[in-house]
Amino acid sequence: MLVGVLIREATDADWPAIWPILRQIAAAGETYTWERDIDEATARSGWMKRPPGRTIVAVEDGTVVGTAYTRPNQDGAGAHVANAAFLVDPAYSGRGVARTLCDHVLAQAKLDGYRAMQFNAVVETNTRAVTLWRRYGFEVLATIPEAFLHPVHGYVGLHVMYRKL
Amino acid sequence: MLVGVLIREATDADWPAIWPILRQIAAAGETYTWERDIDEATARSGWMKRPPGRTIVAVEDGTVVGTAYTRPNQDGAGAHVANAAFLVDPAYSGRGVARTLCDHVLAQAKLDGYRAMQFNAVVETNTRAVTLWRRYGFEVLATIPEAFLHPVHGYVGLHVMYRKL
Repeated sequence: MLVGVLIREATDADWPAIWPILRQIAAAGETYTWERDIDEATARSGWMKRPPGRTIVAVEDGTVVGTAYTRPNQDGAGAHVANAAFLVDPAYSGRGVARTLCDHVLAQAKLDGYRAMQFNAVVETNTRAVTLWRRYGFEVLATIPEAFLHPVHGYVGLHVMYRKL
Repeated sequence: MLVGVLIREATDADWPAIWPILRQIAAAGETYTWERDIDEATARSGWMKRPPGRTIVAVEDGTVVGTAYTRPNQDGAGAHVANAAFLVDPAYSGRGVARTLCDHVLAQAKLDGYRAMQFNAVVETNTRAVTLWRRYGFEVLATIPEAFLHPVHGYVGLHVMYRKL
């Protein structure tokens, strides 16, 4: 756990702090399958999850430095497998914010009764994320070939990553 | 191509014919990750795709006997991989309706510029579907273990299936 970083449930009041982070990461186009010019309404409805989904923020000295959501990866008979996504303000990267978010997300997902967690689309060139998820016990179940058009590397694979909880 | 079955784009007027098929297949709970008591509004918004998605119907003698949709499996930099789903009225199963729909969906997806097609959640005990998709050149890239709670077989895997177009 990072000293000085508080994790709490996100509220509507956090969105104005989350949106610039999301917009910046979307615009870079290297790690998420969002439109690079994603509009605020689409971003907001996609990120701010309603129950049984959850959205959290990582706050340092009153500043939102990262955020994550968890939700059922499928409905109905597939709702016992969670999905999650993470954003860290690039200005605060390399300081353990993603790890702090992940610690919380995994513990809460287990508590919520999910049996496993699945990431559907981890860009294979996002080695920082892939390395982190592997450290957290996620394995690559498959790589969808050429499923992501990276602005620098061209067509690269998307990993399906998975771990039990 | 099945003789006597016409494939055309679905319109709002087709929904009253699609809904009983979808509801019946959802209620059985064996092949899709939908709530078994899915409500009509959720079903409709999930099935009747807006552009760039497409929804089609298979019509025999004026009766909707099957339906399918195609959409980008991801947004943004992942939108060149299509996703699709298929429903056949159980009263018309075993007559090639799924094949007729699949022939059309694959050809149209290619025409629409998709480079590949991915199914995210094919229930592994749905051997009729798995066999059909294999015949159509799809391969199982991964099986998410115990990701589907089948009403008869308990926890079974969900295949991620894929083919280039």
